[in-house]
Amino acid sequence: MADPGEDRIAQLLGRVARKANGLSQPDRREFLRAGLAFAGSTALGSAAVMRDALASADNLPPNVPPWTRSVGPGVVTNPYGAPSAFESGVVRRTVPWLTASAISSISFTPLQDLKGIITPSGLVFERYHGGVPAVNPDDHRLMIHGLVSRPLVLSMDQLMRFPSVSLIRFIECPANGGMEWRGAQMEALQFTHGMLSCCEWTGVPLSVLLEEAGVKPEGRWVLAEGADGSAMTRSIPMEKALDDTIVAYAQNGEMLRPEQGYPVRLLNPGWEGNTSVKWLRRLEVGDKPWHQREETSKYTDLMTDGSARQFTYVQEANSVITFPCPEKPLREKGRYELEGLAWSGRGRIRRVDVSLDGGINWQPARLKGLVLPKALTRFSLPFDWDGGRALLQSRAVDETGYVQPTLTQLRQARGTESIYHKNAIHTWRLDESGAVTNVQIE
Amino acid sequence: MADPGEDRIAQLLGRVARKANGLSQPDRREFLRAGLAFAGSTALGSAAVMRDALASADNLPPNVPPWTRSVGPGVVTNPYGAPSAFESGVVRRTVPWLTASAISSISFTPLQDLKGIITPSGLVFERYHGGVPAVNPDDHRLMIHGLVSRPLVLSMDQLMRFPSVSLIRFIECPANGGMEWRGAQMEALQFTHGMLSCCEWTGVPLSVLLEEAGVKPEGRWVLAEGADGSAMTRSIPMEKALDDTIVAYAQNGEMLRPEQGYPVRLLNPGWEGNTSVKWLRRLEVGDKPWHQREETSKYTDLMTDGSARQFTYVQEANSVITFPCPEKPLREKGRYELEGLAWSGRGRIRRVDVSLDGGINWQPARLKGLVLPKALTRFSLPFDWDGGRALLQSRAVDETGYVQPTLTQLRQARGTESIYHKNAIHTWRLDESGAVTNVQIE
Repeated sequence: MADPGEDRIAQLLGRVARKANGLSQPDRREFLRAGLAFAGSTALGSAAVMRDALASADNLPPNVPPWTRSVGPGVVTNPYGAPSAFESGVVRRTVPWLTASAISSISFTPLQDLKGIITPSGLVFERYHGGVPAVNPDDHRLMIHGLVSRPLVLSMDQLMRFPSVSLIRFIECPANGGMEWRGAQMEALQFTHGMLSCCEWTGVPLSVLLEEAGVKPEGRWVLAEGADGSAMTRSIPMEKALDDTIVAYAQNGEMLRPEQGYPVRLLNPGWEGNTSVKWLRRLEVGDKPWHQREETSKYTDLMTDGSARQFTYVQEANSVITFPCPEKPLREKGRYELEGLAWSGRGRIRRVDVSLDGGINWQPARLKGLVLPKALTRFSLPFDWDGGRALLQSRAVDETGYVQPTLTQLRQARGTESIYHKNAIHTWRLDESGAVTNVQIE
Repeated sequence: MADPGEDRIAQLLGRVARKANGLSQPDRREFLRAGLAFAGSTALGSAAVMRDALASADNLPPNVPPWTRSVGPGVVTNPYGAPSAFESGVVRRTVPWLTASAISSISFTPLQDLKGIITPSGLVFERYHGGVPAVNPDDHRLMIHGLVSRPLVLSMDQLMRFPSVSLIRFIECPANGGMEWRGAQMEALQFTHGMLSCCEWTGVPLSVLLEEAGVKPEGRWVLAEGADGSAMTRSIPMEKALDDTIVAYAQNGEMLRPEQGYPVRLLNPGWEGNTSVKWLRRLEVGDKPWHQREETSKYTDLMTDGSARQFTYVQEANSVITFPCPEKPLREKGRYELEGLAWSGRGRIRRVDVSLDGGINWQPARLKGLVLPKALTRFSLPFDWDGGRALLQSRAVDETGYVQPTLTQLRQARGTESIYHKNAIHTWRLDESGAVTNVQIE
């Protein structure tokens, strides 16, 4: 909730603060004095904190818990497994008011519960324009036609005989964070950034299929059409089609999930998710873009002068702190490992900086695990919390040198009428109770 | 089935062929004359094959399939997703005669259906000694005690505050392929090699927890005990514990599945799977190994002189061709991409060679995608099949220079009484019908 005193501070700072319901605008300077600091060393763990907490443990080994005194189910009780019943809260969720109907809506990945960089297939966000078609793979065909010498109609068996590649790549809806362009604040990481996932995708390079079909010299664009009820369709420039686009049939080791385009989809690594057309049935080579329904009525960026940016495919560098976050507050003082995710549609993440005071002071985070191009990259930073307030931010830099912009920079360049491509530095406010809320500071 | 004429050939070759029921011993030399060859180039795809196949396609676009003429279910119809109903055959399976009871048995991963290197969590093979305990994470504790200065009893919340790492690593039961030591032949890739999976694991390095507890100078071994009904227990030398062992709570981005040790397990990368104790509840530091039930009655290797190898932890370099295989025969002549998996418990795979003639001629395969230490590595090689017979083999070499042995070499070193650590070069026989069977050649 807004603190009246903070308006005055914002004015003193000379910032024109756009406000929406519930928008908080804390003074970043106060956090310099607050009881939160980057950990003085990168020593792992904090013995004092841990042992203090242990004193209250009331269920200590060497007691023998009930589950050790019996035997459980044996093998293939569940031939295709499922998560523990204790994890039933880790699911995709939607925002009912976001769209008119569930068949043309979005569900969100619970980023707050994820570890590492792989998103389990069952938790990958959903975005449909006409619901999930029940495609029979035996009857499905992929047609490649238009400005080609040898039109092709491939069955799944035929498609899967071509040499394949496997790539770990993120996929993100360009509307991710879009509710916040004008100041709306979603009070959950799942809803601020959850149109985002990262999987290992396997399929045939589109370049291989286009070589097979023989693209004519005048072929400059590829139309991709889905077999769903909306016949979702996008225009892809030939440069991308011949670069790293794949015709993907598998995800995280198994065939695509129905909601991810089973049995086959396009995957345009690093580009806005809607271009990775699902339930792919048709690829047409042409000499110019088609300006189809979804790429004119949607997926353009309205600028302040009334013009629209079109074919803004790339998901620029972005990042968000995933712990702490609204769903994962701090419950006691002590040493923690701050964590987050960074990604760029242009390649690898080079570095991520973290601020605890709303962007005044920055410290480089550690990039954890694999740092792959166009993939989620996890970062972390140890910090000590003694109960003070903080404004947590992360700022990604990718291998092209692109620096994730502030909200002010993004709005200066793009106005506030956009829906898509909001990749501004995100701020979490940590208060004295350990609660985390979503705030916008400029 | 054995061909009587082949016995004679084996004798002529001077090989003493061990035979079991159904063992086939084809003459490798005949395959030099057979109609199968490495593809002359690495050109991607085969236009002639593909276009021939297309002529019979009877369901060609631009027809509009029924699923495009309706809309399907919308978002969060399935908050935690599931595979397509058309993939219901892709499941874990067991061999009923393998053990006395399902609660102390093994199920197998369907490697024949997997793509890339990630195994979806629902398909990771199972191995229990007392079934799957239903551990309540709120009541679970991990005790670290013995030769330490500061014994610890950690709740899951406390454990998960320590800095974590995420690693893509294989896990393999050392009994993988063990039925074949004496000549038994399982007619399915799922059963010859399916005690094998590869996931992204997240957890706390054991070295961090041991530092927290303060290992005394005389501490040289760590006992790991599970909370399952068998209290599965293994001794781990301190060198490994301080190297890359992690106390893992997540798998492929989400919390461990129940059958993988929910809420926490040990993970000893590259070592036999049973050392990665699941449902981990106790770590005791001692000055010598414990020789517990499972590491004396099981998980030792009986040699021909009657002695037993003990604490043979490392899963040495191994590989297998996953396509074609018994479950995935060839259905027509033409160009294919042979695929397989290679792995080594000592580090990265350096190269994989493939033979089509039972080991006379070899050609280097391409390593596809990520080549990570102690992880599955996928390899491939294009080949043209004109209907002849072949003996398909793969041979992995890891970064230490270790070369996967032939079956003869392995038996010369280890005899035939072992159950564990059978990593010999595996042979698939491809016959004129395109069928693939499991054969042993020496």
